[in-house]
Amino acid sequence: MFKTNDYFDGKVKSITFETIEGPATVGVMAAGEYEFGTSSVEYMTVISGEMDVKLPGESGWKTFLPFETFIVPANVKFGVRMKGDTAYRCLYR
Amino acid sequence: MFKTNDYFDGKVKSITFETIEGPATVGVMAAGEYEFGTSSVEYMTVISGEMDVKLPGESGWKTFLPFETFIVPANVKFGVRMKGDTAYRCLYR
Repeated sequence: MFKTNDYFDGKVKSITFETIEGPATVGVMAAGEYEFGTSSVEYMTVISGEMDVKLPGESGWKTFLPFETFIVPANVKFGVRMKGDTAYRCLYR
Repeated sequence: MFKTNDYFDGKVKSITFETIEGPATVGVMAAGEYEFGTSSVEYMTVISGEMDVKLPGESGWKTFLPFETFIVPANVKFGVRMKGDTAYRCLYR
């Protein structure tokens, strides 16, 4: 029914679902540092834990807490890192 | 790495993870009506969509929107229903 997605040897796992405005995922990332590429604009919201984010063109990391959102442009790479399990919601637009 | 859980023939799917204060899940429910039982106190937060909730001892349904939370006591049954995919976070305490 719902598709699950695994990345980085299962250290990142998500479930795909639909919203009124388009596709979305909820997922969890284990402690680590990861680089993702976007194919559409992504609205990323932290749901639990704490996520450091490095957006393209920025030199530093910025920390996001639960229910804070950052926006990633389409067709770029961005970095995230966390010290423990961190849950997120991602809206693809 | 992360365990996934399926309920109601896959109409409800979640991923288990850890928080500083204890275990948690993020998950998605498809359109429908479901009854769950608790074995600990559950802090349920809607993450996407809209969830109607009937808590034990209450006669009516109450609607919860994204980032709104309801608390379910341990060792009870409670009902939820939704008209489309609805994502949630659950903290077990």
